[in-house]
Formats: sequence, structure tokens, C-alpha cells
Amino acid sequence: MASANVYASIITIGDELLIGQTIDTNSAWMAQELNKIGIWVHRRVAIGDVWEDIWKALDDESRLSEIILITGGLGPTADDITKPLLCQYFGGKLVVNEDALNNVKNIFLNILKRPMIERNLKQAEVPDVCTVIQNRRGTAPGMLFEKDGKVFVSMPGVPHEMKGMMINHVLPVLQEKFQMPPIIHRTLLTAGIGESFLAERISDFESTLPSNIKLAYLPNYGMVKLRLSARGRSEKLRAELEAEFDMLKQKVSDVMVIDEDLTMQQVVGNLLKEKGKTVGTAESCTGGYIAHLFTANPGSSVYFKGSVVSYANTVKTDILSVDPQTLKDHGAVSKETASQMVKGALKMLKTDYVLVTTGIMGPDGGSPEKPVGTVWVGVGDGHRTELHEFHFRFDRQRNIELTATNALNMLRKFILNPH
Amino acid sequence: MASANVYASIITIGDELLIGQTIDTNSAWMAQELNKIGIWVHRRVAIGDVWEDIWKALDDESRLSEIILITGGLGPTADDITKPLLCQYFGGKLVVNEDALNNVKNIFLNILKRPMIERNLKQAEVPDVCTVIQNRRGTAPGMLFEKDGKVFVSMPGVPHEMKGMMINHVLPVLQEKFQMPPIIHRTLLTAGIGESFLAERISDFESTLPSNIKLAYLPNYGMVKLRLSARGRSEKLRAELEAEFDMLKQKVSDVMVIDEDLTMQQVVGNLLKEKGKTVGTAESCTGGYIAHLFTANPGSSVYFKGSVVSYANTVKTDILSVDPQTLKDHGAVSKETASQMVKGALKMLKTDYVLVTTGIMGPDGGSPEKPVGTVWVGVGDGHRTELHEFHFRFDRQRNIELTATNALNMLRKFILNPH
Repeated sequence: MASANVYASIITIGDELLIGQTIDTNSAWMAQELNKIGIWVHRRVAIGDVWEDIWKALDDESRLSEIILITGGLGPTADDITKPLLCQYFGGKLVVNEDALNNVKNIFLNILKRPMIERNLKQAEVPDVCTVIQNRRGTAPGMLFEKDGKVFVSMPGVPHEMKGMMINHVLPVLQEKFQMPPIIHRTLLTAGIGESFLAERISDFESTLPSNIKLAYLPNYGMVKLRLSARGRSEKLRAELEAEFDMLKQKVSDVMVIDEDLTMQQVVGNLLKEKGKTVGTAESCTGGYIAHLFTANPGSSVYFKGSVVSYANTVKTDILSVDPQTLKDHGAVSKETASQMVKGALKMLKTDYVLVTTGIMGPDGGSPEKPVGTVWVGVGDGHRTELHEFHFRFDRQRNIELTATNALNMLRKFILNPH
Repeated sequence: MASANVYASIITIGDELLIGQTIDTNSAWMAQELNKIGIWVHRRVAIGDVWEDIWKALDDESRLSEIILITGGLGPTADDITKPLLCQYFGGKLVVNEDALNNVKNIFLNILKRPMIERNLKQAEVPDVCTVIQNRRGTAPGMLFEKDGKVFVSMPGVPHEMKGMMINHVLPVLQEKFQMPPIIHRTLLTAGIGESFLAERISDFESTLPSNIKLAYLPNYGMVKLRLSARGRSEKLRAELEAEFDMLKQKVSDVMVIDEDLTMQQVVGNLLKEKGKTVGTAESCTGGYIAHLFTANPGSSVYFKGSVVSYANTVKTDILSVDPQTLKDHGAVSKETASQMVKGALKMLKTDYVLVTTGIMGPDGGSPEKPVGTVWVGVGDGHRTELHEFHFRFDRQRNIELTATNALNMLRKFILNPH
């Protein structure tokens, strides 16, 4: 089967999504993976554990899309609605699946080393009209149904269980069945320019873009990603996309961080790896967040050595050798303190570069001279130190994020421009 | 107007949600705030910047819900679909709103200190049939429409702009208009027990729960929240909920962290504040993440002094005084190293307590003796040291989260049980 467009709907089931206790990260991941094999997500719908709402969603979405992916409603404490409903919707009855049963038993006997309870065994029951998708990462099996040429897949809501099923089973099946040309993307990252100014700057480019290539703006904490997309596998289309992407790169060269779909911390990490250099941080206001961003990348131990989170002034003086008199005269949030933090961090961490932050993230701690959002960032390599003052004007979380982004960008420029 | 149940639908507009480039955090926040004033979210729907999809979503959701909250589609680079569509849907024409225009001008002249462009000025245009909701945090105004007794609100997708409008305008208007009894919750946090075992343990309790009180399980990284909910403002109902909550607490007393809706790091922070004690961390495998969790809390400087992120062994030896011979004999991920990290961290950070982690988060770095997921956590106060080995079996991100949760819980128990 092949058609012009293949659409998918994602249905997430669970009260926790409707009362706001859980943030849905599954759908974004699923959409990315579906895009790679040429399937476009048409709609995402979140509903509660309510029989008629689930039934209606299955009806509605199967009118709009060829593929309906369902997550949630299968946990051991779910209200036993989803599985009986799927049974009735597709006309079958619940039976024990031997593979799923063995999987549940194996998890309890060999991995958790705990006795099983009735509730766990019931997870091995599936409608007899589905293809069972074994769950290698948990106890609830997945189920694949076909009806009137549409494919329905029900998976658990636990992210790593759903991901395992998607990668090992669902995506290969969909790719085989629909054989869509992939959606190809070219993405670049900019920093330090607002969305509207970026749009103004590339408005000529945008207006002459051929209709088969789409441009998207993706703003995020002081950065904007620009993405060109097209659908197809021909060499001609690829070349066309490349040519447009080259033109776009020229338009934004001065604010471009990288011409790939990477995060700022990945870009800085790759740069350090390339140059065989190491980095450490001394963080006051970011409280370890930049160190966390670095170390969230697998393999970061090659270039990231460590951090001194100097939240208290005593840690600034004791470990980073900041002069108490400097703190007294200029305050912790000052050029002078940031400068001494750079020196102290280089001495203690023995890295090629250090990145330091000191600021007021709010909601309290501001003053007329130094309002909430005032931040000093420093970068140094033992020969040269760069210090810069920033003023953010948001809430605590956003101020921490913006400080981290701008600090990492300062470090990136510092490494690239060895004056 | 008052009725038995008031339902809301949330519609999010934007291709970025369908291609998975953005994770929707707005909906969860909105749902929580709506719940507080007695409004239940019936469905959440995400759609792209497509005229007919937006039109259909407005039609469908207004058949199901009294309140339709729309976010996104209003940015300066949006494809100019949402505002003209709302105009046509509600039968009006676009006019410049003076307040919104002054707001845009003020942001550019006084805050951004940049020249304005046409694209920015266009953001001050609104349909003449709406109530304008001024945006104090950005350039795109919100719009409130009423049609056939239903309320429609369109807001920007930028989280802190949407939140400002909701708090200052939308929620008060909805509360005034619908006057719903609030949904009251009582929540407790457990750690160290799986969802199915928790369910087994409280199955008697669950089966005798009165029908007007609902129980929900909310699992998250080694913790499960249990929440009882009821709707109403009567004293009798409150007392009934309290009594059931007390019973639930007794059933789970040994695994309960706190009988409030708090995060583990808030619980530990509050405990330290209460006792007037300070803490610091020495983090290898968690790479600053625990420090970040502490410092994300406003006011954490009272109890959190700092951290040594000793990702490289040289930082463990140089700053934390771990004996190089210990690293050679036992490895960085060992009881012996964790124990020396506790001593070194206490010496350097001069806090009442320290929390240390060293482990292998994956995907690489594992061995048959120490597979990925092996972690040593240590807690100490100078008199006593507790060390514990954990084995997680997930991906890097999840292993970091689980290590942080379990480490914080170890610290909590250590503080509470001064043997």
C-alpha cells in the first residue's frame, strides 16, 4: 500500500494527563520517529479513563488517520477499561497470551525478585483478535489491531516501555505496510536573536521558497531553530533542499550556532571533543544546571571534568579562593567576583576552559541596583578572561535556563575565537 | 450560571507539537489551575497550523465542553491563520487595539530597546468581537469570545505569557462565570514501592472508598503519588476526605515520604530548613543534577551551600581528597570511593550533611562486575556515614533521575533517624 500522505493520530489515555499531574513527553518522541519514516501526525488527543470518551476517540481519529497509536490505560492499577473496550471495539475476547505470561513471570522471578500477585498476571491477558507486541521492558504487552484498512496500536504509557515497542516492532511494521517517502529535514540553531527579527531578516528568502519545501521557526530559551522540510527520497529533492539550506545559512551566518539539529550543550561538547580540550564550571546562580546539561550527554566524561557549585559565599571563598573583601565591596553578583571565580575554578578543576555564573534568579534577592535577572557570566582559559553582564526578566526557572544557554554560547564563541 | 459539571477542552495549535520538536508543558499547568476552581478538563487536542483542522477542532470541542482554551498560533511568525480564522468563526473584523499597540511599543522601546517592525505592530490587531486580554509579558494579546453560552479563549503558546493571562484574567473570569465548587485533593508521596504492590496493599481501602471520593496512582521515577479527590466546598465533605486520607496514610506509613503534594527535593529542603541544618553534594554520576534539583527551589540558599561535581577522577582526588590508591584498587564506583567522597565533601563544603553519588549511568562504561546502572550513594554528617548500592536498569536519563530520587530519600531518612 502506498498513498500521497499517510496520517497518524496519537491518543493518550489517562486522567493524570487531564489533571496536569503528568507532562506528556511520549507524543513528541513518537511524532519524531513517525516523521522519519514519512508518517505525518495529524492530531494528538488526550482523554481520561472513560469508556465513551475512548470509544469516541477511536471512532473520530480513525476517520481522520490511517494509523491510530494509543498509549496508556494498561498499567496494573488502570481501571480495567482499555483492554475490555478494545476487545469489544474489535470484536474479540480476552485470552491469556503465553509469551506475555512468561515475560511477566520472568520479570518478577529473575529481575524484581518479588512474588507475583493476581493483578500482575492479568496483564498477560489480551484480546484474541490482536497481534501481541511483547514488552521486553515491562509487564503490559502491546496490541496491534487492523480494521477497515486502518492500523490501531495500543501500548503502555511508560516511556521506555513504549519506546522499546515502537522501535522493535511498531515502526518496522508501519514502514513495511505504508512504504512512505521519508520527510527530510535540515535544521540550524541560532542564538541571540529574537524570532521576529529573524523572520524579518529572512522574509525575502521565505517568500521565494518553493512550495515543496517548508520553513519552521522553533524558539526556545534565547535560541531559535530554523528547519526546512520536504518529503521524498529523490536525489533532486535532496539537492534542492541542500541549496535552499545553504542560502538560509548565509542569511543567518552571524547568529548561527550550528547547521545541525543539536542542542547548545551538544555543540559545545562536540567542539571540545574535536579540539581535545576540557571544561569545568563554577556555578552560583545556575546551581549545577550547566554541569547537568553537559553530563546528560553520553560520553561527556571525555571533555567535562567537574564543577564547583558555589551557592554559598563560603564555598566561593573556601574552594574558589574568592577574596572575602571582594564579596564585601562588590557583592557576589559582580564582575570582580565572577573574575575571581574564573581564576579559582581554573586552579581547582585544572581544565583548559572554565565557565562561571553568578546572579540573582528570583523571585527574591533583587535590589534596585541589581534587580532579579542580573547575571555575570565569565569564561577563561588561564590566558584570557571574558566577563559579561546579562539582564533577564522572567521567572526563576526561565532565568536559570537563559543563563545556561547564554553562558554556553559565550564559551562556544570564546573557544572559536582565540584572539 | 452554575451546573453539575463544567468541562473544558484545551486546543493547542502549532506544527511544532505534531512533529515532536516541542513538548507541551502548558496543558498540564492549565489543567491544574482549572481543577482548583472546579473545572474538569475533558479533552486535550493538538493540531497543526491548518485552517480546516482548527475550524473542526473549535466545532467538535464546543459540542463537548463549556470552555475552550486555545494556545499557540499567535507568534510573529505564525502563518497568519489563527487570528483571521477566529475573526471569521465568530463573525468580526480585525482592528488595531490601542492598549495592545501601546504594549508592543513599550516592550520594544523600553525593554528590548530595539526598533519595531511591521510584523510586531500587526500583533496588536484583534477581532472586534472579542474581549482583549492584555499581555504584560509579551507582544501577542489574548482574546476571549462568547458564543452560544460557551467561552473561547485564545492565548499565545509561550508558557510565561499564557500563565500571566490565565492568572490575571482568564481564571478570575471563569470562576465568576461558572461558580463551580472546587475540586479538593489530598495527596501523599511514597517512595521505594512499585505501583502494583501499592495497589495490592491498599486494595481493601480502595474497594470501600465512597463513590464521591476518587483515588489516583501517579507513578514517577521510583516514587508513586496517591491522590484522593472530591468535589465540593462543604465542611462535611472535607471531613470525610480527611478521614479517608488518614486511613490511607496508615496503610502506607512505612513507605510514605510526606502527606502533601510536594517533590522529594522540596520535602528534604523543608526538613533541613525546619532543623536549621545545611547540606552539600559531591556528585559523580549525577553530574550536578541533585544540586540543580535543590537550587531550582526558591529560597534554597538557606540550606543548600554547594556541590563538588567530581566527574573526573582528578577532581575526586584533588578537591575531595579521595586516595588515588582507592580508585586504583576498588574503582570510582565502589563503597570505598563513596565513603571517601563523603569525608572530603564534609571537609570542603563545611555543611551539616553531605550526599554523594558515584555510578555508571550508561549507555557505555559497564562491565560484567559493574553493569550499567550500578550506583553507590553515601550520606554523612561527620559522625555517621551510610552507604548503599543501587542497581538500576534503564537508559541514561532515567538512571540519573532514579539515582537522584533514591539519594534524596536516603538523605531524608538519615536526617529523620539520628541513631
